[in-house]
Amino acid sequence: MPRFALKIDYDGAPFAGWQAQADQPTVQGAIETALARLDRGFAAGARIAAAGRTDAGVHATGQVAHADLEKDWDPFRLSEALNWHLKPAPVAVLQAARVDDSFHARFSASERRYTFRLIARRGPVTHDRGLVWQVLNPLNVEAMREGAAHLIGRHDFTTFRSSICQAQSPVKTMDEISIEEIALPQGAEYLFHLRARSFLHNQVRSIVGTLERVGAGAWEPIRVAEALAACDRAACGPVCPPHGLYLTGVGYPQNPFRSGTDS
Amino acid sequence: MPRFALKIDYDGAPFAGWQAQADQPTVQGAIETALARLDRGFAAGARIAAAGRTDAGVHATGQVAHADLEKDWDPFRLSEALNWHLKPAPVAVLQAARVDDSFHARFSASERRYTFRLIARRGPVTHDRGLVWQVLNPLNVEAMREGAAHLIGRHDFTTFRSSICQAQSPVKTMDEISIEEIALPQGAEYLFHLRARSFLHNQVRSIVGTLERVGAGAWEPIRVAEALAACDRAACGPVCPPHGLYLTGVGYPQNPFRSGTDS
Repeated sequence: MPRFALKIDYDGAPFAGWQAQADQPTVQGAIETALARLDRGFAAGARIAAAGRTDAGVHATGQVAHADLEKDWDPFRLSEALNWHLKPAPVAVLQAARVDDSFHARFSASERRYTFRLIARRGPVTHDRGLVWQVLNPLNVEAMREGAAHLIGRHDFTTFRSSICQAQSPVKTMDEISIEEIALPQGAEYLFHLRARSFLHNQVRSIVGTLERVGAGAWEPIRVAEALAACDRAACGPVCPPHGLYLTGVGYPQNPFRSGTDS
Repeated sequence: MPRFALKIDYDGAPFAGWQAQADQPTVQGAIETALARLDRGFAAGARIAAAGRTDAGVHATGQVAHADLEKDWDPFRLSEALNWHLKPAPVAVLQAARVDDSFHARFSASERRYTFRLIARRGPVTHDRGLVWQVLNPLNVEAMREGAAHLIGRHDFTTFRSSICQAQSPVKTMDEISIEEIALPQGAEYLFHLRARSFLHNQVRSIVGTLERVGAGAWEPIRVAEALAACDRAACGPVCPPHGLYLTGVGYPQNPFRSGTDS
């Protein structure tokens, strides 16, 4: 059966996360329902697999999934048909591409990229409600960068891992934590860009929640290194809410969308 | 009575525009209702005046209004109290400042700045629903810039003015129309930045709707000059929808917020 990779964008707010559940709206469920309108295999219960199984409320601008279809669709027509059947859910297929059977959206992935949006200002957020995490007080971006530097490289991230994380090992290699600061008419927005081969459950939200404490002056930057070294979940800062988090991209040894549909 | 300038941010979606109406939710109405909780004059029907009376669905990140209050409020406490009473409306007072009685939010303004957000991509917008205008096909930004250049300077903008516009003269001076292009995972976003002392009714939406026709290849750039010279509303391109439009700032000979509350 021809295999297709899909690049997917969604607003996580109305969904109980990516992963299909029997009695809850999920992103996977919305896409499989759309596929079932096009393909007998999905009408009979076939499933898709994704690079990152985002939590409830978490957004994506570059999620990647794959699906095996009965028909050899033109990739552009497939993306258009899926977007038609996905309406009115806030889910968009940005690109579809025909891939080899050896491609697996999750197991072939060599890199995941996440961005966390944090706005620090007094007035409540208006346009970005549900799309950012807001704190009221200004943050020290240099202190947050100093704290973040302690997390780069290969470490045991037990401290920054949900207690229900199912990964076999807490050892991960963090390739990048960069923090952009954008001045706003009042206050500032901070974009935390994190990049790694793979992440533990709640790792990004645990790290950003901890760095916010550093930015607020409640933690010295060195305390991030101490928390990491403790290998103890109790040493973590507060886990920040899901609605500021975006899965922005997934890297593969060979880009499946190189020759796919784009516009 | 002490006069205060307010810098205001709002999501226009739930409002029938800025200007108070008896039986419709408006931004002015929301702010005056909040002021009535703090001030006897507003409880008795006092009004605020704003620099730009935005249409239904139009947003702001830097609207400016002024209010005369009975008490000489600390500006920071005033902004905090207003934000408290504005909940849960998507309206935020970003800053308050004590100003002279000679300051008038509308008549003292020497510059208005608007940004229009346009996304060109196939997949439906997800996170930015209601916050951008979407078109499906790619646009030629160089052609749009060439078309926009014809509108810079002092002109009779009758072509780009709503038939119900109440301004005494259709002659305005356009100081800037710059167009930013931002690549997206699929397609691109175009930010149209317009700056002038003042604008006619529907002028920004008429200009952006016309430039989109140029970007799509349906109009040659020179047709923008011809449309302007025609001084005929019928020569205008389609007026684009309000929900991509933002009043981003208002300029005054003396910045009223220079010494105001900020964070």
